[in-house]
Amino acid sequence: MEITTKGIDEFVVKVLSEVGRSLVIDTTKNKLVDTKKDRNDLVTNFDKSTEQFVVSMIKEAYPEATIVSEEGFGDDVQSMDGLVFFVDPIDGTMNFVKRGDDFASMIGVYLDGKPFIGGIIDVMRNKIFHGGPNYGIFCDNEKINLPENKALIDGLIDISAPMALNNYLNTQEVVKNSSGLRVYGSAGIIFEHLLLGKEVMYMSYLAPWDLAAGRVLCEGAGLSVTSVDDTPVNMLKSQVVIAGTQNVVSEVLKTVKNCD
Amino acid sequence: MEITTKGIDEFVVKVLSEVGRSLVIDTTKNKLVDTKKDRNDLVTNFDKSTEQFVVSMIKEAYPEATIVSEEGFGDDVQSMDGLVFFVDPIDGTMNFVKRGDDFASMIGVYLDGKPFIGGIIDVMRNKIFHGGPNYGIFCDNEKINLPENKALIDGLIDISAPMALNNYLNTQEVVKNSSGLRVYGSAGIIFEHLLLGKEVMYMSYLAPWDLAAGRVLCEGAGLSVTSVDDTPVNMLKSQVVIAGTQNVVSEVLKTVKNCD
Repeated sequence: MEITTKGIDEFVVKVLSEVGRSLVIDTTKNKLVDTKKDRNDLVTNFDKSTEQFVVSMIKEAYPEATIVSEEGFGDDVQSMDGLVFFVDPIDGTMNFVKRGDDFASMIGVYLDGKPFIGGIIDVMRNKIFHGGPNYGIFCDNEKINLPENKALIDGLIDISAPMALNNYLNTQEVVKNSSGLRVYGSAGIIFEHLLLGKEVMYMSYLAPWDLAAGRVLCEGAGLSVTSVDDTPVNMLKSQVVIAGTQNVVSEVLKTVKNCD
Repeated sequence: MEITTKGIDEFVVKVLSEVGRSLVIDTTKNKLVDTKKDRNDLVTNFDKSTEQFVVSMIKEAYPEATIVSEEGFGDDVQSMDGLVFFVDPIDGTMNFVKRGDDFASMIGVYLDGKPFIGGIIDVMRNKIFHGGPNYGIFCDNEKINLPENKALIDGLIDISAPMALNNYLNTQEVVKNSSGLRVYGSAGIIFEHLLLGKEVMYMSYLAPWDLAAGRVLCEGAGLSVTSVDDTPVNMLKSQVVIAGTQNVVSEVLKTVKNCD
């Protein structure tokens, strides 16, 4: 299939719609829950079946693409050349299992290393955020109002609980200079909050599939996404990421650097 | 008007419906924001107008009642004798101002010191949780399924950010023994999560109007609500409160006591 932003965008929306329809029903079912790295790193049968479905859809539509995915049904990708899909079948699996809300499914698409199209479905609200740079950022069929370039003092921020509790790189100073801390527990849901201007900064240790779609959408919406050492993010490894308004990210980087 | 649980419950639902309809529109309007105790303790013109509306409705329907309310339009209540209403016009004012979601309006009703009827509206989801002990707990017109008596290790918990960040009374140990920390920033919204079994514990410093409705509903749903020193809550003062499943509250009290 020819690679166009419109074509990929429509494909991502179509796949996420089907994923969302299925996951809404899955929240009501018994889940087979297993752990990965530790007691609170969960995976369910639905993470796996969703990823298998998304990977098979991508392979059918874009057989030349490579796929980076959370549960291992994708490829062993070593290069960002060509068309690369990042798949997070259920982002916020803990929320999916314990709450039945505030979880997402995400697909990020990169072309020769550059952000191309991203898609995030907030499953229980049935909203799909999608689009990319030079294309526009949409919620379902409507272009979103781009978030204001707010300052830290004017906004709520979301930091992963372990980082905030351990005052990692002086993050408690960042909290003190903001309107307050929130912890929602799903990167996809928090990227949604950034796009809608509900929060002004997110900091967490993210794997490529946690970050890929959100980075495309944030950059397309004029937000800033950087690694915590102020170098560009590397899409083939896990890293601590700061995403937010230009003003907030530059202020947070200063606080974090003072910690060295 | 004769005082019956059914009568008060219907009155609370009617008032909260009207409040909700009005606040949904108010989120789209410019807000006059002022601060109270500190930079992040906000109050808006809508907190005040909503409280005035609720207080006037109560005074009309139950002129014999006394009213404890956040913004000062109620009475100077020194006794829990008779019928006492607690009014929190907008709970989570920071969320109301910065996010436009995850805020609530709450009315708690006590008769001779005993929990009688509580009502919480999750404004943006348009859901009213209401009812009381010996009456039933409802979401809109349906009785809710009472939350399971889960253990700490099996559930997400919500602790106010300042307490968690400062490891107040060893709360970080509590987080470590749970499925994880969430911070939603509104007592009303978190009480909703407890009632629905989405979280298993909430700990925060709460004023009477923050606590009153949630306590009635939680106790009516078989959950436990206590002050952090394991004495019954005092409805006429602010205090650190622990609310959650019986199992979790008893486990948390042990951790907190070990801190002495």
